[in-house]
Amino acid sequence: MPTSPHLSPTARSTLTRKPGRAETDRAELGAVLDAGLICHLALVSGDSPLCVPTGYGRDGDTLYLHGSTGSGNVRTAARGVDICVTVTILDGIVYARSLNNHSMNYRCAVVHGRSRAVTDDVERDHALRVISEHLTPGSWDYARTPDSKELAGVAVLALDLTETSVKIRGGDPSEQPADADRDDVWAGVIDVRTVLGPPRPATYVPADLPVPPHIAERPSPR
Amino acid sequence: MPTSPHLSPTARSTLTRKPGRAETDRAELGAVLDAGLICHLALVSGDSPLCVPTGYGRDGDTLYLHGSTGSGNVRTAARGVDICVTVTILDGIVYARSLNNHSMNYRCAVVHGRSRAVTDDVERDHALRVISEHLTPGSWDYARTPDSKELAGVAVLALDLTETSVKIRGGDPSEQPADADRDDVWAGVIDVRTVLGPPRPATYVPADLPVPPHIAERPSPR
Repeated sequence: MPTSPHLSPTARSTLTRKPGRAETDRAELGAVLDAGLICHLALVSGDSPLCVPTGYGRDGDTLYLHGSTGSGNVRTAARGVDICVTVTILDGIVYARSLNNHSMNYRCAVVHGRSRAVTDDVERDHALRVISEHLTPGSWDYARTPDSKELAGVAVLALDLTETSVKIRGGDPSEQPADADRDDVWAGVIDVRTVLGPPRPATYVPADLPVPPHIAERPSPR
Repeated sequence: MPTSPHLSPTARSTLTRKPGRAETDRAELGAVLDAGLICHLALVSGDSPLCVPTGYGRDGDTLYLHGSTGSGNVRTAARGVDICVTVTILDGIVYARSLNNHSMNYRCAVVHGRSRAVTDDVERDHALRVISEHLTPGSWDYARTPDSKELAGVAVLALDLTETSVKIRGGDPSEQPADADRDDVWAGVIDVRTVLGPPRPATYVPADLPVPPHIAERPSPR
């Protein structure tokens, strides 16, 4: 388990493009993973790459994922294969004076590694709580926890946060010298935010049942 | 090029999990691709999967991507390899009475296929316009178009929208019969929206330069 505050670059995790956007601080990695809501999981299925969105959770230097044992891709990942998990937060649309300098502001964490099936009951329970608390904080102690039949249908995967890269872009557009005097052309940023709406009760919930505080007061992600 | 309004499932694009969430209408595929801002591109690099966010654009049954020729992954994709492009829009966080039924509302399109490097000048120019107009509509006719040196640094890829799957979840949480009488437990949905902020000019833009309408009046995605 890495104890250095700096990420350890390998060939896979060393950025070859725009290395100035790379972040080497583990705190930065944790911040991106904690700010995202979903990840994209990539694996090789047959000879082809596959990329699907899924939930996740982080506990220290371990990323947890889960999926249905009815999914072939989940069963593949549970065999312990190379996977890539990417969390991307789009922060802005960047308008430059030249199209080539148009860009996005974003925070992105890419994690490479070999998946590990979590089979120990105690770790599985812990991992499911971590995943649940990431997407729906407060739910684990409020809603009904999984029974043995439900648990049997869930595969839990762990991925060490050892081989990772974090890339962040923020601020103004970059410009070319040729465009510096084009004061008639607007440039700037439109910020993109993920905003949570008010809780909407399911049709079958009694009208007078209050929304519990962990849902009613949930802030939008930053 | 597919002319049927229905998607053609193959082994890779046939959903094995929750097939009730599959959409087989090509219009639905187009709607998801048009509503997303970024995609995740997965490919196999060495023996390992890699998944990175990037911009894209769609013209009919062709998806276009671009990237720097300085990127090893872009050069790999430009050789014509199997790739997977996934566009995910998170629409809501679904709180059920049981943790096992917690879920997300989302729209997701997954496209499998072999990438094709776009080398013809006319198609390249068209593809770059399509990609630009997707992320920054109106910019192509407003900002400076790429010069020959800038164009030389950009690789353009095409992917046929032939082998695709679309998966959509919306509405209330699912519940188990065992939880149906738990009228003391709240369940419902928190909607997730992607909201664009007001345009913020770059520091070097004259204070009295108006924001052009294609930027000032840009609506948030739906």
